[in-house]
Amino acid sequence: MLQTNRRTASDRSNVSRRSFMKGLGTAAAAGGFMASGLEAFGADYAMERPDIPLGPVGRKVNRVAADPTDIPPPIRRHTSKTHDITLTSEEVVAEIEPGVTFNFMTFGGQVPGPMIRVRQGDTVNLTLTNDASNRMPHNVDFHAVYGPGGGAEATLVAPGQSRSFSFQAMYPGAFIYHCAVPNLDYHIASGMFGMIVVEPPEGLPPVDHEFYIGQHEVYTNKKTGEAGHHAFDFDAMMDEKPSYVLLNGAKYGLTPDRLGAMEANVGETARVFMVTGGPNLTSSFHPIGNVWTDVWREGAIQSAPEKNVQTTPVAPGSCGIFHMKFPVPGPVFLVDHALSRVARKGAKATINVTGPEQPDIFAAR
Amino acid sequence: MLQTNRRTASDRSNVSRRSFMKGLGTAAAAGGFMASGLEAFGADYAMERPDIPLGPVGRKVNRVAADPTDIPPPIRRHTSKTHDITLTSEEVVAEIEPGVTFNFMTFGGQVPGPMIRVRQGDTVNLTLTNDASNRMPHNVDFHAVYGPGGGAEATLVAPGQSRSFSFQAMYPGAFIYHCAVPNLDYHIASGMFGMIVVEPPEGLPPVDHEFYIGQHEVYTNKKTGEAGHHAFDFDAMMDEKPSYVLLNGAKYGLTPDRLGAMEANVGETARVFMVTGGPNLTSSFHPIGNVWTDVWREGAIQSAPEKNVQTTPVAPGSCGIFHMKFPVPGPVFLVDHALSRVARKGAKATINVTGPEQPDIFAAR
Amino acid sequence: MLQTNRRTASDRSNVSRRSFMKGLGTAAAAGGFMASGLEAFGADYAMERPDIPLGPVGRKVNRVAADPTDIPPPIRRHTSKTHDITLTSEEVVAEIEPGVTFNFMTFGGQVPGPMIRVRQGDTVNLTLTNDASNRMPHNVDFHAVYGPGGGAEATLVAPGQSRSFSFQAMYPGAFIYHCAVPNLDYHIASGMFGMIVVEPPEGLPPVDHEFYIGQHEVYTNKKTGEAGHHAFDFDAMMDEKPSYVLLNGAKYGLTPDRLGAMEANVGETARVFMVTGGPNLTSSFHPIGNVWTDVWREGAIQSAPEKNVQTTPVAPGSCGIFHMKFPVPGPVFLVDHALSRVARKGAKATINVTGPEQPDIFAAR
Repeated sequence: MLQTNRRTASDRSNVSRRSFMKGLGTAAAAGGFMASGLEAFGADYAMERPDIPLGPVGRKVNRVAADPTDIPPPIRRHTSKTHDITLTSEEVVAEIEPGVTFNFMTFGGQVPGPMIRVRQGDTVNLTLTNDASNRMPHNVDFHAVYGPGGGAEATLVAPGQSRSFSFQAMYPGAFIYHCAVPNLDYHIASGMFGMIVVEPPEGLPPVDHEFYIGQHEVYTNKKTGEAGHHAFDFDAMMDEKPSYVLLNGAKYGLTPDRLGAMEANVGETARVFMVTGGPNLTSSFHPIGNVWTDVWREGAIQSAPEKNVQTTPVAPGSCGIFHMKFPVPGPVFLVDHALSRVARKGAKATINVTGPEQPDIFAAR
Repeated sequence: MLQTNRRTASDRSNVSRRSFMKGLGTAAAAGGFMASGLEAFGADYAMERPDIPLGPVGRKVNRVAADPTDIPPPIRRHTSKTHDITLTSEEVVAEIEPGVTFNFMTFGGQVPGPMIRVRQGDTVNLTLTNDASNRMPHNVDFHAVYGPGGGAEATLVAPGQSRSFSFQAMYPGAFIYHCAVPNLDYHIASGMFGMIVVEPPEGLPPVDHEFYIGQHEVYTNKKTGEAGHHAFDFDAMMDEKPSYVLLNGAKYGLTPDRLGAMEANVGETARVFMVTGGPNLTSSFHPIGNVWTDVWREGAIQSAPEKNVQTTPVAPGSCGIFHMKFPVPGPVFLVDHALSRVARKGAKATINVTGPEQPDIFAAR
Repeated sequence: MLQTNRRTASDRSNVSRRSFMKGLGTAAAAGGFMASGLEAFGADYAMERPDIPLGPVGRKVNRVAADPTDIPPPIRRHTSKTHDITLTSEEVVAEIEPGVTFNFMTFGGQVPGPMIRVRQGDTVNLTLTNDASNRMPHNVDFHAVYGPGGGAEATLVAPGQSRSFSFQAMYPGAFIYHCAVPNLDYHIASGMFGMIVVEPPEGLPPVDHEFYIGQHEVYTNKKTGEAGHHAFDFDAMMDEKPSYVLLNGAKYGLTPDRLGAMEANVGETARVFMVTGGPNLTSSFHPIGNVWTDVWREGAIQSAPEKNVQTTPVAPGSCGIFHMKFPVPGPVFLVDHALSRVARKGAKATINVTGPEQPDIFAAR
């Protein structure tokens, strides 16, 4: 399986070493970030804030919302293999909702980033390319990796550069990956997170549909819904007080009114791979008008699944694997059941379920 | 089992279609809410705020705190049956604490709303009556229901009207029900949530006592404890910064100093049905001076219980089933162990345990 | 096992009954706190705030950070025994980070307080001594205790006094202990929490290392990182908006740059005993560059462990037992994955893993 990002930066330019260092924070710069990349997680860097542009910077794209069905197929192999996978960091401008733009940072131009799917025991040669049009350094930490920073140290790259590391997927589950430079909360809140699924040797139970959903929150200098460009707000982030809580990077993005709903038929089943990027908020993940028949909490597929669960906390920096069935027609809404985030900040996606009414199960009168 | 609410509205009056539409939000009104009730969950409605009355509106009642022991008995049947159940939405004025009034919205005049108890496989004919004295539209979403909005679409009703739907309880557990109109966070924070228990075919383990506790948080325009009428505050809700965090709708309500404690004897056991209405906060549910011997997290009764748990997160829009025993005398305090909510905002209830000292287990010296 | 605190107060003085009463809050004082200690948890006391000193008060110490390896050894006994254990409350001034001082309250001069370790069925004679140099009343609530307030009523003591109670450890697990006077959130946020481990009769699985980590958050009247003395801020606590989120009471304390990291070798295993004091925030506990091989959520050791978990919520007033292994060299960072707490507020500790590279598992290129 070779995964490459689907967009090519159009405006490549050189980024000076000086601005790269500034992006990392003064302390890291002073110490030489290539040598001290990991220790940039330490005490010294903490209060360095980068310059935050107040207006849009970079190329404008129509959407960053990942297509929830654009994911690699389930694994049917019974042997191990080696994957060469490249992720590309892309800084783009996109709308959170109509009329509201934001400077996103992404993997592969989408939120959440491309899903990676391997089998326990497989080896991954992972390359991170920092698109030359970007302004900032980036890297990537995989929670599926035994190794320094989950790969963050090995992939810290300036714009226009690429770095690589190899790892063996030692344990199964669904795991987040995310940017992990010193201001990692800023990068994640701007969209830099995705999921790697490590299937157990026996694979996953068969289902009719698989959907891929990522929640994160955005901290901006304007009120929720206020028209115009929203700049990032560090103080709001420190207070964990976001303007938006999004599924797949857009306010009510995966709904019929905006980018389109997911689809299923009566009698079918689905598996939802859900990742909470955060950087700070726990999601209380719930399907309105439905129930999770099986939940692998934290994406920990080796644990016994919980049965018929209404709402499951998914911590920032964690995942969940959720099975559901569709015995009746009508919309199902995936939400964070902290409902002000649904009613006001955008955390809702729709699965349209089509088919004959089942009046023995549900009947409006 | 026929359940009816125990209060009758005393001041029925007509509510104009116009004010009803306003209550739903302009976008929903423009689109015709009856047809688009569910899509009112979508993007367009989000920022519509209703007019918030600054003073008390409606009839004053002495308490909204649900009696924690006023719950249907455990189910002993071995066959299915059909239930006709009516819930009535009631908007009332009550004290949160002595000297502090608030405009509550409730099911059945109580917080949490009446517990409904059925057996897996049973059918429920559910009617929601919106009391004619109310000002606002209401509906109800049951997490035990496979169907659009958990019944929310089928039950969206104007004051003075009733609507019904039927459902089969397909899966067991303890589930929240709550109002789910577009400003659902406002309605839930005002008290509109309760619990439906769907017992598995074999029933629940026998215990000596059952208690019913609902936590939710209230967002007001005054400081916690400030005398007078507290009006609802949407900005505080968006910031998830409540003035009160309540068990059964009253600050320290279920304590000897106020409305009275729950009671048990040394050597007995109890089951606590706990529902977190939220709308936003997760409870860290803990019994001070005791431990949960068995926990069915999220109320998911088909999962294996966890054993001897000190504190369990209960997400907004979720439940828990908790077993405990009382080996020694003395008070047990049920709290949200986010302790500022206990020390300052009201989230504490007392179980008085009476009986002989057990000095081999506990002895003050 | 006799545990005593390792510091002796140097400045013992009498504290008047009047100031003691004030420390408890007026209502409790009026009612006579010795008789009504437990009901001080009730409604009346709630809004009483103590006088908060704006400057440093008490003796200055070099560190409060508990040594994460200074914990009692695993239990090898197959019979029960009785322990005489004394905890001493100590109010001290220490740095949160270089240049920032804070008035800590502690058990035994350290955060978290000394770990207590017993076997299910053992009896503990527990004495709480309130150091004579202290200003405030204190007590202790053990979540491992069946009894009023978990021992809080029996141990409420004025400075210079001691009180005792006895309990039998009836159920196994890892449990928090914490101060539980009326302003308990203030005392816990100032550092008054620790852990008691009650091993099951068969003991715990063998590991190569055991580490002891406590998370809590501090609410101050200055911005994070602002130099000088930070006074406690009750309003920030009510808003659950801390200036610091700390592991073992110090910003990035257990890292090479400050107080030193934990150490392990490639091929070894470790058990992390983690306690979240709170008083309000849930930790999303994650090992960067590693995974929890086994998790006993809430420290509930009788439940089946979860396998290969990336991130686990640990509620305020709860614990977790986490196993990990170290297949590759390099640092592992223990964090609360609400990452703004890591990047800005201090919630990070390091385990340095030394040994040969394992390029089949991880290889930078």
